[in-house]
Amino acid sequence: MSSSAPVPDIVRCAYMELVVTDIAASREFYVDILGLVVTEETETEIHLRSLEEFIHHNLVLRQGSQPAVAAFGFRVRGEADLAKAETYYRELGCEVRRTEAGFRKGIGEVVRVLDPLGFPYEFFFDTEHVERLTWNYEHHGAGAIVRLDHFNQVYPDVDTGARYLEGLGFRRTEDIRDSEGVTYAAWLARKDTVHDTALTGGAGPAMHHVAFATHEKHNILYICDKLGALRRSDSIERGPGRHGVSNAFYLYLRDPDGHRVEIYTQDYYTGDPDNPLVTWDVHDNQRRDWWGSPVVPSWYTEASTVLDLDGNPVPVREREQSQEMDVTIGADGFSYTRKDDTATGFKVGSQL
Amino acid sequence: MSSSAPVPDIVRCAYMELVVTDIAASREFYVDILGLVVTEETETEIHLRSLEEFIHHNLVLRQGSQPAVAAFGFRVRGEADLAKAETYYRELGCEVRRTEAGFRKGIGEVVRVLDPLGFPYEFFFDTEHVERLTWNYEHHGAGAIVRLDHFNQVYPDVDTGARYLEGLGFRRTEDIRDSEGVTYAAWLARKDTVHDTALTGGAGPAMHHVAFATHEKHNILYICDKLGALRRSDSIERGPGRHGVSNAFYLYLRDPDGHRVEIYTQDYYTGDPDNPLVTWDVHDNQRRDWWGSPVVPSWYTEASTVLDLDGNPVPVREREQSQEMDVTIGADGFSYTRKDDTATGFKVGSQL
Amino acid sequence: MSSSAPVPDIVRCAYMELVVTDIAASREFYVDILGLVVTEETETEIHLRSLEEFIHHNLVLRQGSQPAVAAFGFRVRGEADLAKAETYYRELGCEVRRTEAGFRKGIGEVVRVLDPLGFPYEFFFDTEHVERLTWNYEHHGAGAIVRLDHFNQVYPDVDTGARYLEGLGFRRTEDIRDSEGVTYAAWLARKDTVHDTALTGGAGPAMHHVAFATHEKHNILYICDKLGALRRSDSIERGPGRHGVSNAFYLYLRDPDGHRVEIYTQDYYTGDPDNPLVTWDVHDNQRRDWWGSPVVPSWYTEASTVLDLDGNPVPVREREQSQEMDVTIGADGFSYTRKDDTATGFKVGSQL
Amino acid sequence: MSSSAPVPDIVRCAYMELVVTDIAASREFYVDILGLVVTEETETEIHLRSLEEFIHHNLVLRQGSQPAVAAFGFRVRGEADLAKAETYYRELGCEVRRTEAGFRKGIGEVVRVLDPLGFPYEFFFDTEHVERLTWNYEHHGAGAIVRLDHFNQVYPDVDTGARYLEGLGFRRTEDIRDSEGVTYAAWLARKDTVHDTALTGGAGPAMHHVAFATHEKHNILYICDKLGALRRSDSIERGPGRHGVSNAFYLYLRDPDGHRVEIYTQDYYTGDPDNPLVTWDVHDNQRRDWWGSPVVPSWYTEASTVLDLDGNPVPVREREQSQEMDVTIGADGFSYTRKDDTATGFKVGSQL
Repeated sequence: MSSSAPVPDIVRCAYMELVVTDIAASREFYVDILGLVVTEETETEIHLRSLEEFIHHNLVLRQGSQPAVAAFGFRVRGEADLAKAETYYRELGCEVRRTEAGFRKGIGEVVRVLDPLGFPYEFFFDTEHVERLTWNYEHHGAGAIVRLDHFNQVYPDVDTGARYLEGLGFRRTEDIRDSEGVTYAAWLARKDTVHDTALTGGAGPAMHHVAFATHEKHNILYICDKLGALRRSDSIERGPGRHGVSNAFYLYLRDPDGHRVEIYTQDYYTGDPDNPLVTWDVHDNQRRDWWGSPVVPSWYTEASTVLDLDGNPVPVREREQSQEMDVTIGADGFSYTRKDDTATGFKVGSQL
Repeated sequence: MSSSAPVPDIVRCAYMELVVTDIAASREFYVDILGLVVTEETETEIHLRSLEEFIHHNLVLRQGSQPAVAAFGFRVRGEADLAKAETYYRELGCEVRRTEAGFRKGIGEVVRVLDPLGFPYEFFFDTEHVERLTWNYEHHGAGAIVRLDHFNQVYPDVDTGARYLEGLGFRRTEDIRDSEGVTYAAWLARKDTVHDTALTGGAGPAMHHVAFATHEKHNILYICDKLGALRRSDSIERGPGRHGVSNAFYLYLRDPDGHRVEIYTQDYYTGDPDNPLVTWDVHDNQRRDWWGSPVVPSWYTEASTVLDLDGNPVPVREREQSQEMDVTIGADGFSYTRKDDTATGFKVGSQL
Repeated sequence: MSSSAPVPDIVRCAYMELVVTDIAASREFYVDILGLVVTEETETEIHLRSLEEFIHHNLVLRQGSQPAVAAFGFRVRGEADLAKAETYYRELGCEVRRTEAGFRKGIGEVVRVLDPLGFPYEFFFDTEHVERLTWNYEHHGAGAIVRLDHFNQVYPDVDTGARYLEGLGFRRTEDIRDSEGVTYAAWLARKDTVHDTALTGGAGPAMHHVAFATHEKHNILYICDKLGALRRSDSIERGPGRHGVSNAFYLYLRDPDGHRVEIYTQDYYTGDPDNPLVTWDVHDNQRRDWWGSPVVPSWYTEASTVLDLDGNPVPVREREQSQEMDVTIGADGFSYTRKDDTATGFKVGSQL
Repeated sequence: MSSSAPVPDIVRCAYMELVVTDIAASREFYVDILGLVVTEETETEIHLRSLEEFIHHNLVLRQGSQPAVAAFGFRVRGEADLAKAETYYRELGCEVRRTEAGFRKGIGEVVRVLDPLGFPYEFFFDTEHVERLTWNYEHHGAGAIVRLDHFNQVYPDVDTGARYLEGLGFRRTEDIRDSEGVTYAAWLARKDTVHDTALTGGAGPAMHHVAFATHEKHNILYICDKLGALRRSDSIERGPGRHGVSNAFYLYLRDPDGHRVEIYTQDYYTGDPDNPLVTWDVHDNQRRDWWGSPVVPSWYTEASTVLDLDGNPVPVREREQSQEMDVTIGADGFSYTRKDDTATGFKVGSQL
């Protein structure tokens, strides 16, 4: 997985395309409940954005027969980076397709690749500017979602995957490891936050979640309150809580097709070139939730299928290294372990 | 459990006395971590209050050999209510002791009773006024606790217990029942909030928790963050979350002796005489947590011993009616049930 | 202003009737912008309530030719209190009218009085219960208004007015005075908060403001953000800020007719019979705003006309004692004074 | 002001050095009240950082005889950028001094320049890493300051100044102009926020303010509450409020020497190369405060002296173009104008 070609200058994660099986149900979830803004829509495709976004969209919902993820879109710094992306991935031996403007609504030329890990990555620069609703508080609900924050990808071999992304210019900001040298997950950033994407060790390639940001924690709590009022609390898979990794306040939802959506707020600035890497011990019970709340098993085991450039499911490979869930769920059914079963008091945990 | 004597006019729940086995550890928990204010302390007894309190204390920690609860203190409207309390409980056949001022630090005469349910209730009016730190923001931490909010008592027969408390002038504001007429819990108020005390069905008499209030939800989240930072996330038993019952935002902690403490904010006004009773179906998965988060088993099964007027443990009687935990924890280990096991989507639940 | 008759047991402030000159504009303000809930409406009358209310209404908007306040409504504990109110006010020599159910929509019998200060007070017990939207978060906007909190009345002689209200069973919780014994304002409560009504010294009788409560401070900030987005920031007269008196977080708006509306959150519990009175020195620059922000002159000088029982404006009498605005606005146009004009550094202020 | 040399790659604003006349008073302000963290201190110099910072310091307080600003420090991407900075500024004809490691505590080599506008800019890459207290919630007060956000500089000719900064690689994100083409202020960013520095039109070169960020709005409100409790509300110069420009929630304080400090939270992501410029009309009354609150005159007229590389005050030049304060403060003493003096209702304002 190496290329001697210059890397494209990736600015940030920009959009994801989800294939959904009931677009009306998905519209209700993303628009009526979560309040994403419709930029454009047809009967089979809806382009959505967050309130502070000025590019055409952050999320595409497309009607299909099976739930899947068709694209992870990244914005590059300029048109010249498209050619760099083309060359870079061709040198890696990947399938690359450069599409003309209009392949994606509101977006110019796109370089589509099936990357070395098997994910459908897309790179673009040109985009239609749409109204940024930053100041339009009359449209901000109590759970206002203001930004796309990051993607999270499931992949069997996190070390290999992270090295590829670091080669592409991502900074590793945090990871989870054990004392035997196994890496369970890694967080990687282009913009100044903790991540634009992350790798979670598991059967993949697959999409773990897409994350949107709110301004404050109470916005996330309101989303829970509203789901309760709508008798849809089953949509809440995990949280709300405080992450150890990233220090963000979080909530994981499942959309009507089971695609996982995180609502996320307040991680920290990582833009310096020597931003310190934070490594967490997989046995630190506060790594995934700073308050020690157990991770529900589905969060570890379920993920969305990703599609290749022709729209066919990419086959999934099992993880061969030890699984985070296995090494951290104790016999009592709670997803943390104590170094000493007879211990009372504090949960065990410390950074490596 | 009936008395024809006039009832004392109870103003509010006012203090609880906890017997703790390591007073230094308890002081660290309640003062250093939770930020309660020391009104007075000796080597074996600490009197604490919340930031907006003007009576002498809301919590007494007393060193002892076994964790227990020695008193549930209620303030009455005037001195004349002490005599009413004496007569009322004597007519109920309860043991009653009227103590002189000084029996409790900072408190005048106290009428102590072992009430018909077996709880050590205390009634007082006279109290030393101490500095109300409402405006002293320099002493308010990020998790500032401003008021004692309520008690919660475990008792086998909630209907009987609630009728006794209603006879004493408490308004029932909410309860949890099933369609067979079983009552699982009831909330009862004197002041204008959802409760001054509540009854939780279970083996009792026992103390389920004592609850303190913050101004906002972020104060409660900070307490969790701080416990995480101190590597004491094991103190968090349940939550934070949104209650269905009471609509309050909540967090349950366990102190070093296992006494349960709730941090609570933003229930609603209940002061009208015809305040509508809210009855929840025990099968409504959002009754205990509006977001459908499962209740951990310990929350149902563990409670603190209460002491009689001589300081001896009051024997506990098992609940004979069906147990809330049993009827709501499914085979999958989560504490909710679905009407139809094969159902997907919304959790089942509605008010009776 | 004294009566030997038993006083009615007032539970709380319950509704206000505003005469507005353009009911469509008022509806936009109270419903579309502030989010009050319509219980019932006709072309000339709208009955509104806050989200957690269960009585029929907290605010009546009635189309008329001149802006005015037609009623300050208080709920009493039971039907028997209506007769007490009748007798009490007749003994005070006031005009009293007892109306049949239906005089006010959703309300039973009402005892209407023009009280000794010249205000149109109404007392009622019976009311239609309507849906309490406490849990209906799908209807809660980011600036959700959950309760009616209090009234504020302008009257020339605060001492006289406060004595009358204390005679009626109100507890004085706070006041503003000077060292010469002049009282500039007083806060008076029946429910467990800092006030159900307050008296502000000035030309009156007149209505200073009606106040509604939110759960948290960010809800109030959002109302400002939304008014900005709607280019209606001129509706903001004063604040947001932190009161010294009451310790509440506040915002004052002016409705389309100039009626002043406060949005208010997080004062403190005052329900004990010996709740300590807090007296502020009129020269304490933090009494009206804890952060020392100047009070705008209109806040002191403008108020709404009140109507007598026949709907005629009650004549206004000037205040004879010194005016708070005069003794606190310095030559520099800021509404605070320093004990020493040459002082730098801290604002001067302390409680008496 | 142009240079053909390559520009150094500036990462972000990093520190400011303030000369203070009473270092004990300044320490009380920045450490005891605002909660900045002491990295190192001597009797005459204190190095402070925000809670989430990992470089050695964000603020240096140095004892001196006159209040002044000795340095605006920017971090560059690598050592090679120091040589670029040297060459770049020499080509601009500026005085440039490259100092060895140790000139600033915890910092490696520094390139010091007196830039074309007369400001003492410093560029550095190498820095000692110190503990990032992101997760150390036990040290986070209710008003926790987590990041240095930006500088703000006063300069007579904003267009000239902004062109120089754009030449240095800053992106202009927002500005305030009028229809005659006068620019009153401009905001310029290197990191992904609205600014690393801004230019405010006025007598300069001078330092307008240094800004630190909190996570949420309530943190800023608490700082006000605490200042009130300490009877230091006079330290509050303006706000809290919502900016139009930047959309951030803000508060302006004055330190014991009158240096202006902003506390700031929640602007928006600006990292895309084509991030849309937002231009505000100087007559838009919501540009400086979205809620229309007047700007106090001192905010326009007072600023801190800046020092040259030898520590001598840089002479100040008056602004020749029209002044924002003059064109926006009306005859009524409020700092906004209406297009039509007889207008009632909405404040006038719209983006160009």
